Amino acid sequence: MTVRVGVIGTGMIGQSHIQRITEAIPGGQVVAVTDADIPRAEQVAAGLPGARVRPTGQDLIAASDVDAVLVTSWGATHEEYVLAAIAARKRVFCEKPLAPTADGAMRIVEAEMAAGRRLVQVGFMRRYDPGYRALKQALDAGQVRAPLLMHCAHRNPAAPPYGFTTDMIISDSAVHEIDLVRWLFDEEIAATTILRPRRTSAAGEDLHDPLVVLLEMTSGVLVDVEVFINAGYGYDIRAEVVGEAGTLSLADHGEVMLAQQGQRGSRVPADWRERFGRAFDVEFTEWLRAVAEGTTAGPGSWDGYAAAVVTDHCLRALRTGRRVEVTMPERPDFYAKVQE
Amino acid sequence: MTVRVGVIGTGMIGQSHIQRITEAIPGGQVVAVTDADIPRAEQVAAGLPGARVRPTGQDLIAASDVDAVLVTSWGATHEEYVLAAIAARKRVFCEKPLAPTADGAMRIVEAEMAAGRRLVQVGFMRRYDPGYRALKQALDAGQVRAPLLMHCAHRNPAAPPYGFTTDMIISDSAVHEIDLVRWLFDEEIAATTILRPRRTSAAGEDLHDPLVVLLEMTSGVLVDVEVFINAGYGYDIRAEVVGEAGTLSLADHGEVMLAQQGQRGSRVPADWRERFGRAFDVEFTEWLRAVAEGTTAGPGSWDGYAAAVVTDHCLRALRTGRRVEVTMPERPDFYAKVQE
Amino acid sequence: MTVRVGVIGTGMIGQSHIQRITEAIPGGQVVAVTDADIPRAEQVAAGLPGARVRPTGQDLIAASDVDAVLVTSWGATHEEYVLAAIAARKRVFCEKPLAPTADGAMRIVEAEMAAGRRLVQVGFMRRYDPGYRALKQALDAGQVRAPLLMHCAHRNPAAPPYGFTTDMIISDSAVHEIDLVRWLFDEEIAATTILRPRRTSAAGEDLHDPLVVLLEMTSGVLVDVEVFINAGYGYDIRAEVVGEAGTLSLADHGEVMLAQQGQRGSRVPADWRERFGRAFDVEFTEWLRAVAEGTTAGPGSWDGYAAAVVTDHCLRALRTGRRVEVTMPERPDFYAKVQE
Amino acid sequence: MTVRVGVIGTGMIGQSHIQRITEAIPGGQVVAVTDADIPRAEQVAAGLPGARVRPTGQDLIAASDVDAVLVTSWGATHEEYVLAAIAARKRVFCEKPLAPTADGAMRIVEAEMAAGRRLVQVGFMRRYDPGYRALKQALDAGQVRAPLLMHCAHRNPAAPPYGFTTDMIISDSAVHEIDLVRWLFDEEIAATTILRPRRTSAAGEDLHDPLVVLLEMTSGVLVDVEVFINAGYGYDIRAEVVGEAGTLSLADHGEVMLAQQGQRGSRVPADWRERFGRAFDVEFTEWLRAVAEGTTAGPGSWDGYAAAVVTDHCLRALRTGRRVEVTMPERPDFYAKVQE
Repeated sequence: MTVRVGVIGTGMIGQSHIQRITEAIPGGQVVAVTDADIPRAEQVAAGLPGARVRPTGQDLIAASDVDAVLVTSWGATHEEYVLAAIAARKRVFCEKPLAPTADGAMRIVEAEMAAGRRLVQVGFMRRYDPGYRALKQALDAGQVRAPLLMHCAHRNPAAPPYGFTTDMIISDSAVHEIDLVRWLFDEEIAATTILRPRRTSAAGEDLHDPLVVLLEMTSGVLVDVEVFINAGYGYDIRAEVVGEAGTLSLADHGEVMLAQQGQRGSRVPADWRERFGRAFDVEFTEWLRAVAEGTTAGPGSWDGYAAAVVTDHCLRALRTGRRVEVTMPERPDFYAKVQE
Repeated sequence: MTVRVGVIGTGMIGQSHIQRITEAIPGGQVVAVTDADIPRAEQVAAGLPGARVRPTGQDLIAASDVDAVLVTSWGATHEEYVLAAIAARKRVFCEKPLAPTADGAMRIVEAEMAAGRRLVQVGFMRRYDPGYRALKQALDAGQVRAPLLMHCAHRNPAAPPYGFTTDMIISDSAVHEIDLVRWLFDEEIAATTILRPRRTSAAGEDLHDPLVVLLEMTSGVLVDVEVFINAGYGYDIRAEVVGEAGTLSLADHGEVMLAQQGQRGSRVPADWRERFGRAFDVEFTEWLRAVAEGTTAGPGSWDGYAAAVVTDHCLRALRTGRRVEVTMPERPDFYAKVQE
Repeated sequence: MTVRVGVIGTGMIGQSHIQRITEAIPGGQVVAVTDADIPRAEQVAAGLPGARVRPTGQDLIAASDVDAVLVTSWGATHEEYVLAAIAARKRVFCEKPLAPTADGAMRIVEAEMAAGRRLVQVGFMRRYDPGYRALKQALDAGQVRAPLLMHCAHRNPAAPPYGFTTDMIISDSAVHEIDLVRWLFDEEIAATTILRPRRTSAAGEDLHDPLVVLLEMTSGVLVDVEVFINAGYGYDIRAEVVGEAGTLSLADHGEVMLAQQGQRGSRVPADWRERFGRAFDVEFTEWLRAVAEGTTAGPGSWDGYAAAVVTDHCLRALRTGRRVEVTMPERPDFYAKVQE
Repeated sequence: MTVRVGVIGTGMIGQSHIQRITEAIPGGQVVAVTDADIPRAEQVAAGLPGARVRPTGQDLIAASDVDAVLVTSWGATHEEYVLAAIAARKRVFCEKPLAPTADGAMRIVEAEMAAGRRLVQVGFMRRYDPGYRALKQALDAGQVRAPLLMHCAHRNPAAPPYGFTTDMIISDSAVHEIDLVRWLFDEEIAATTILRPRRTSAAGEDLHDPLVVLLEMTSGVLVDVEVFINAGYGYDIRAEVVGEAGTLSLADHGEVMLAQQGQRGSRVPADWRERFGRAFDVEFTEWLRAVAEGTTAGPGSWDGYAAAVVTDHCLRALRTGRRVEVTMPERPDFYAKVQE
C-alpha cells in the first residue's frame, strides 16, 4: 500500500521531505500540499504529478484522498494542525517542536488520549541515525554494563545570519540531545544546569555561544552537552557513553581518508543535511510503513511534550544560572508501549 | 511512475532484491516472478500482493505488465534471459556474471547494438558504494593529482562450505575489483599477473587462498589486489589510491567505537550484505529511476564483457604463473557515453 | 657534566626514578639513597655501583657529593626535605604533592624566595608528554584561535585495593589536570564545581566514583574533567580543546592496529607507567640538564602551591555541592619567568 | 660504566648520533672524532668537552681511550674501518651499508668469525621502532597465527635534489624493508621481483619512481613494498601483516588530532628523523648497554651481508624485469644466536 501524504508547509524543510518521499524512499506519495504562501505551494505542486494544492491546512487534513499528514509549517502553527489531524483521526508527522509551549503539547497529548489511538509522530530524527542506533543497541546489549556518564558535542559551522538567540541554543539545538538521551537511556531527565563558557568572538551580541547543558537522568547518569553554534570547522556531532565496563562513542563519519600536505584525515560533514540525511530517510521509511500497517512507532506526543517540559526547565536554568529540578507528570500508560 | 519489475530467479539473491524493491527503495513494484523451481517462486509470490508467477523466464519477459526484468537466476542461464529481454526491447538488470564466457557476453553486446538502444545493466554494485564514490569524486577532482598505484584487499571471513575453487577467487571475487578499477580510473586493464602467497591452513585442497592479483592499467597505474577468502576476522574491503600528491583510502566502516578490556576499536562488517547493503539500495534506486526516465546509467553490457575478458586473462595468468597481456577489442562508440 | 643525585624515599616510585636515571636517560648518577626503612634503602643501593646509603634525608641533603635531591618519600614528609634542600641551596625535584597543604607549599615558596634562587621542581609529568606538548604547541601557534572549552577524561582501570577515598579523586588524580590546564592555557583557575554522576558499582563505600570536575579559567575557558578511578577497561587519558576555529585532541596511543574477530582497534595503555613512561623520561632528562646548566625550567614551587590551593577549593566544592570561587594570591614576579 | 665512543665521520648523520649519545641517551661519551675533512671534525670536537680529534680512522680505532667505534663515514669507506675495528677487537657500530658490495660484507663476516667474537652491529634502526616492535611481539605471540602476506609502503616526501637513481630506491630505501622482514619473520628472502608502476611526473629522468618490490620469504610469505621517493605529502611508513586469523598494522603516528575547515586528522611525519627519532634513541641505548655488558644484540655482520645479497638480487630483478631467486649461503652457526 502506498500512503497518500498531504504536506502542510512547503518551505525548505517541507520541500526536502517531499523530495525524500518522492525520490528516495518507498511507501509514500505526496498527493496534496498547502502553505501560508499559496503561490509557493503551487510551484511545489507543479513538480509533483498527481499532487493538488489545498487552500488551507484544515482543507488538506479533511481531504478524503489524504491518508496521512506531514506538518512542516512555521512552528507556531503546529499545534493547530496536529489537533485537527487527531480530530480527523489521521496519522500526522510533525516536525519539531510539537507545539511552541509545553501547555500546547499537553493539549495534543490529551486530544490524542481522548481519541483513543496514537496518531502523532514528532520529528526527532536522531533516533534513526545508524550511529546512535548502533550505540543504543550495544548499550542495551550490556556491552559496557550500566551507563554512568555521557559526553556530547553538538557543533554547527555557523549561526544563521540573524535572529539566533541564546535561548534558541536550547530550544532549537539542545532539544535534539534532550530527546536523544530520554530515548537512549529509556528514562527521564531529573535536573538541568546550563554553563556559560567563554564566548566565541564569532557570535553576535544576543548569543552566548557556546553553552554547556548538563542533564541529570533519574538514575543519576550525568550528560554534558557542548552546544556550539559557530564552531566554524563543520557540523560535528560527538557522543560518548561511559559505562561501568567501557565506553561507546560515535565513530568518525568520513567515507575517505585523504593523506596530503603533511596531514592524514577525513571529512567532517558540512551541515545537518549531510550528517543526518540517512537518518531522515530511515525515519520517513519507517513512519510510512507504520502508517500503512496501522501501527505506532517512533517518538510520539508524549516525547514532544517531555522535550518541551525539559526545554522550559533548561531555559529557566539558563536565566537563573542555577541547577533546576525538572518536574514532569507521570507518563500515562497510554504512552508506555508501542502500539501494534 | 512506478516501474513494474519481473524477477527471474527467486533464490537468496533474488529474494534479497525483491525485498529491497518492495520495502527499502522507491520507484518499483515486483509484479511477476519465476524460477526453475516453481514452488519456490509461488512461495515468494505469496508474500507479494499483486505479483503473479510466470511459468518461464521467457513468459515473464513477454508479459505485457512487466516493464523491466531482473535476472537473478543461476549464472549459466543469464545469457539466454538477457538476450530475450533485448529481443523484447525491455530493460534488464542482470546480476554478475553477464554471461559465463566472454563469447556469451559479446553476443549480448552485439544483440544490444543491433537493437540500437542500451537496455542492459550488470550488477557491479561497488560503483554505488558511498565510499568508492567519494574516492572517485576526490580522484576526479584532482585532489591527489595523477594516480600511480592502488592497493586493495578483498577479504571474506570464510569460503562457502564446499565447491569454492582457486579459479573462483578470480571469477567470483576479484571480478569486483576488475570492474571497479576500470570505472575508477576510466581506462582498461592492459596486463595481469597472479601471485601465490603462502596458503592459509584454513583453505581446502582445491583452494590456493589467498592470492594477489596484479592489474596494470593502460596508463601504467599498477593495482594490487589481495583476495583472501578465509580471512577469518570479517568481511573487510580496503582500498588506497596513491597519487602524485597524496593518497586516498576507504575509511573504516564502523558506526561505533567501543573501548573495552584494553582495546579501543570498531566493528568490521560480518559479510557483504552488511558491507554493501547501502550500495545495493543506491544501485537499484538509480536503476529504477533510469528505467522510468528511459535513460541509461551504470555498468552495461560492455562492462560485463570487459570484465569477462579480463577474468579470462587472469585465469590464464593463474595457470601459467606468468604475466599475461590483455587483448580486448576497441570499445564501440555505442558504449562510449551514457545515453540520455 | 653528570649530575650526582641523592634520592630520599626508595619505595616503588623512587625505585622507578632511580632506574630511569641509571638506565634510560643521560646526565645523572644516583650517588646516595635513604629511606625511612633503611634496609630497603640498603637493598636498593646494593644494585647501584657508587651509591651510598645515608642515614637520614637531612644527611643526604648535606652530603657534599650530592648535587641535587630527588624527593620520593611519603607525601607528608615532602615539605621538610624540600625546605632542607633550599636551606642547603641544592636543586630539588619533589614528587607531587609539594606539601600536604597549601600552607606548607607557601612555606616552601617563601623559603625559596628568601633564598633568592629557584631551586624546586614539582613532579607534574604531563607537561612533558609528547601529546600534551604537541597540543600546547598547536594551541600557542593559534591553530584553533582562542580556546573556549576543554573536555578531559582521566580514567584508571581500578582503584588501589583499599583506602582510596572520594577526596583522593581530587587530590591524587584531578590534581594532574589542575596543573595541566594552568600550564596549557597559561592562566589561573577562577572557580570550580564538582558534579557527582551515577556511581559505578565497582567502587567501595567511601568512594563516589566517577566525579566530574569543572574548572573555570580566568579567561572564561571552561574545563570539564571526568575522573573515573574504576573505569575497568584501561588507563585512558583523553583531552580535547575546543577553540574558535577548530578543536585539538590527544590522538590514540596504540602502536599497532589489530583486526581480529570482527573488530579493528588498538591497545589502550594498562596503567600510568605505560601511558606516561615517555613523559617521565623527558621530565628527568630536562631536569638533569637544567641542574647541570644552572637554569630553571618546569613546574616550580608556585605551581605546587597553586595546585594545592585549587585542590583545597575543589574539596570544598565537593563537600558543599556548590560552585566555589578560587581565591589565590597574586603570583610573585619571582615566579613569572623562567630563570636562565 | 660509561662507554667511550670514537666516531669516524662527522657529517650530518655522524653529528646527529654524536648529539644523541651526548644529550639524549645514557651510557656513552664521545671521546674521539675524525673525518676526511679534519676541520669539520675539529669544529664538532670543539662542542664536545673531553673529545679529541684523531688524524685518521685507523688512529681513532687504535686509541687506547676508545672503547667502541661508530662508523658514519662515506659508505665506500665502511669496510676498511669495520675490518680495522675487528682487528683491534673493538666493538663497532656501522651505519648501513656495512660494505658497498656483498663481497665486502662477506670479508667482514669472515674477519669477525676469525676473530671469534661478534663485534659488529649494523644500523638497521627499524628493528628498534616501538611500532615494529609491538607488531613483532604480537606476531610472535601468535595473535594472528601464521603470517601469509605483508603490505608495506615506504614514502619519502621528495628525492634529494640530484643524484638519486632508480637503483638507489632499492639500495638506499628498500634495503630497510629487506632487513626488516628478515627480522620480523625470522627467515630468509627466497625470491624477488620489481614492478614498475606509472612514474610520478615529479621524478627526474634517471628515476623510475615509485617502484613495487616483491619479496618472497622461504615460508611463502609474500611481501609487497611500495617505495615512493617523491610521495610529496610526507614521510609515511605503512605496514600490515596479514595472518591466518587477522591482521596487524602500524598505527598512525600523530600525537594530536586537529579538526579544522571541514577535516579531522593528524600529522604525517615530515622526514625520517621525526619518524624514527625514537628508534634511533633505543638503538643506541641498547648498543651502548650491550657494549658495556660485553654482550651482542641487534643486527650484525651477517644481517649486513644478507641485506647486501638480497639487494644485489633485487637490482638484477630491476634490470631484467624478471623474478629472481635469491641464492645465499647457509648462515654460519656463529651467527645463529645472540651471544651473551
